[in-house]
Amino acid sequence: MRTVQVSLAERSYRILVGGGLLSRLGKECARLKLGRRCAVVTDEKVAPLHAAAVLESLKGAGFEPLLVTVPSGETAKSLKVVAQCYDAFAKARLERKSFVVALGGGVVGDLAGFVAATYLRGVAFVQVPTTLLAQVDSSVGGKVGVNLPAGKNLVGAFHQPRLVLCDLDVLKTLPDREFRAGLGEVIKYGIIYDAPFFRRLEKSLDRILARDPAELSAVVARCCAIKADVVGQDETESGLRAVLNYGHTIGHGLEAISAYGKYLHGEAISIGQVAASHLSAALLGMPAQDVERVRELFFRAGLPVCVKLSPAQRKALFDAMRLDKKVSAGEIKFVLARAIGQVEFGQSVPDDLVNWVLDRIEG
Amino acid sequence: MRTVQVSLAERSYRILVGGGLLSRLGKECARLKLGRRCAVVTDEKVAPLHAAAVLESLKGAGFEPLLVTVPSGETAKSLKVVAQCYDAFAKARLERKSFVVALGGGVVGDLAGFVAATYLRGVAFVQVPTTLLAQVDSSVGGKVGVNLPAGKNLVGAFHQPRLVLCDLDVLKTLPDREFRAGLGEVIKYGIIYDAPFFRRLEKSLDRILARDPAELSAVVARCCAIKADVVGQDETESGLRAVLNYGHTIGHGLEAISAYGKYLHGEAISIGQVAASHLSAALLGMPAQDVERVRELFFRAGLPVCVKLSPAQRKALFDAMRLDKKVSAGEIKFVLARAIGQVEFGQSVPDDLVNWVLDRIEG
Repeated sequence: MRTVQVSLAERSYRILVGGGLLSRLGKECARLKLGRRCAVVTDEKVAPLHAAAVLESLKGAGFEPLLVTVPSGETAKSLKVVAQCYDAFAKARLERKSFVVALGGGVVGDLAGFVAATYLRGVAFVQVPTTLLAQVDSSVGGKVGVNLPAGKNLVGAFHQPRLVLCDLDVLKTLPDREFRAGLGEVIKYGIIYDAPFFRRLEKSLDRILARDPAELSAVVARCCAIKADVVGQDETESGLRAVLNYGHTIGHGLEAISAYGKYLHGEAISIGQVAASHLSAALLGMPAQDVERVRELFFRAGLPVCVKLSPAQRKALFDAMRLDKKVSAGEIKFVLARAIGQVEFGQSVPDDLVNWVLDRIEG
Repeated sequence: MRTVQVSLAERSYRILVGGGLLSRLGKECARLKLGRRCAVVTDEKVAPLHAAAVLESLKGAGFEPLLVTVPSGETAKSLKVVAQCYDAFAKARLERKSFVVALGGGVVGDLAGFVAATYLRGVAFVQVPTTLLAQVDSSVGGKVGVNLPAGKNLVGAFHQPRLVLCDLDVLKTLPDREFRAGLGEVIKYGIIYDAPFFRRLEKSLDRILARDPAELSAVVARCCAIKADVVGQDETESGLRAVLNYGHTIGHGLEAISAYGKYLHGEAISIGQVAASHLSAALLGMPAQDVERVRELFFRAGLPVCVKLSPAQRKALFDAMRLDKKVSAGEIKFVLARAIGQVEFGQSVPDDLVNWVLDRIEG
């Protein structure tokens, strides 16, 4: 088992990465000195696979867990489902010392984390991410929230988990498409922070795709360590943390205009990162060979690297990007790269250049 | 104008107390270095009285305010109205640097503050309380939230305002019943923290009821200073801050079982404080003459000091109290007083003693 520490003063916590961790959940929660009552929030797809093991582990450690099962998919990140969770918590008499376990992918973590952040003005929560994407990205760092009809993650909070438990065994049952989507965030860490890690991914991609346990363990732990490092320097995204949004400006826009239905998040930001790399070449002199290495690695990972939009879709994309949280004084801001491993946030990109790059990646 | 400082490190802010302050709002907001776009959240009763002055002041200082008017009354503190505010903010393209002005009583402040705490994971907000109760209590300290069908303030956050502006002129138009309800919190500060202030209230109550500007200014500023002092020592209610809940255990219960319709908050906690004082005499030896002085002052202020409950209502009251946020390990906790000016939080009270006090205050 590997341990990654997230250092945020009194909000510090540990990320555990390894096999067979679900059965350790109860024991690890007991170390946190929380109340006995807790809620396990999961979704309809994850519940049949892992809920029994999680409930058993919690009960074995003396906890009294309530199981709350929400629909699976991005549509569960809604105020309606938030209200259903509140009502279930109130009915079960959860108290200030109670805690919430998020068992699932990014959607469940974001939703359950937001409910935990706001129920009784905030109760503790524990992340048990069951997808690669959630393990390397959304479960770490305390960003929680839900979508509005107007856009993704427009409502939320910063609420750090008390523990993140990444059980690599659960990745064995992950559908291929979801596993590949997780690689969209994995590759991002190489681009924004760690050129040697990017090279490692280029070399070991086949072993990763074969879900080799040793390689996965190293990769997941390295991603968590990079994220922990960035978040430790800028918890609430006043600056540096924005680098984690590489490829997300166009990526979130694509998700919004397809009503969160067509692309998985990791797929949308794969296209977004290829686009951002072209923009980086045009504006910050990113070497052409780096742009090609980025495109190539996403392609080899089986992720989309191009998109064809109608004029109406393109207009909708610009509208969606203007509503993004990253907009400042009406201007859409991008994260761009000088080279693989070296990025700059807060970059302005004129609309005509965005149009140029959308032409460029029509495929 | 009097200034009270709330000291919370980087979340510190000023409370301004005085006449004619609405017209200074724009200038004071300009000092905070926020974005140009903002939202003024108010209710249907307050809007016709004060919205024009507030919008004019903001526009005069270069801001672009959006007016959001919600229904008046406790029912506006609902997830439904929260969602309506989010949608209005998104439609007006409010950004991370935008801010929210809460113009109204405690309901508007709690609601708008919660929306500000969660929209885009938190934007700045400014409190412009227009009731005595909001000026001395709910606008200070950062507790924001809304109600669930299951209970009051079960959803919320700690989100400190950047500025609180208590314009005493707005109290002139306050209906008598609401003004008196505000005194329910004013008197509380004397009981929990400041025996000389309690004596002052006993002497100057007639001038206060006549809304004498000089006396009101001193009283509002002293209440804010006490609250600032308590909140500065315990921002998130891990201990001391609980003393502010004197009379609130039974008070919140009474509000809940009457579906927030029969009593104003200040009225419910008036009954609750009389009850808490009787319990204090029984459990902590509060002198009988102090109990009588408490009852007498609430009575002179025109506030209710007794309540008659049917057996069914009494059972509902216990159920509501058990759902309160102050419950720990299933036990209802009270704040009790050793004497006027000296309280202890986290006191357990057996159910039969609660029944005894409910008999005692049947009137």
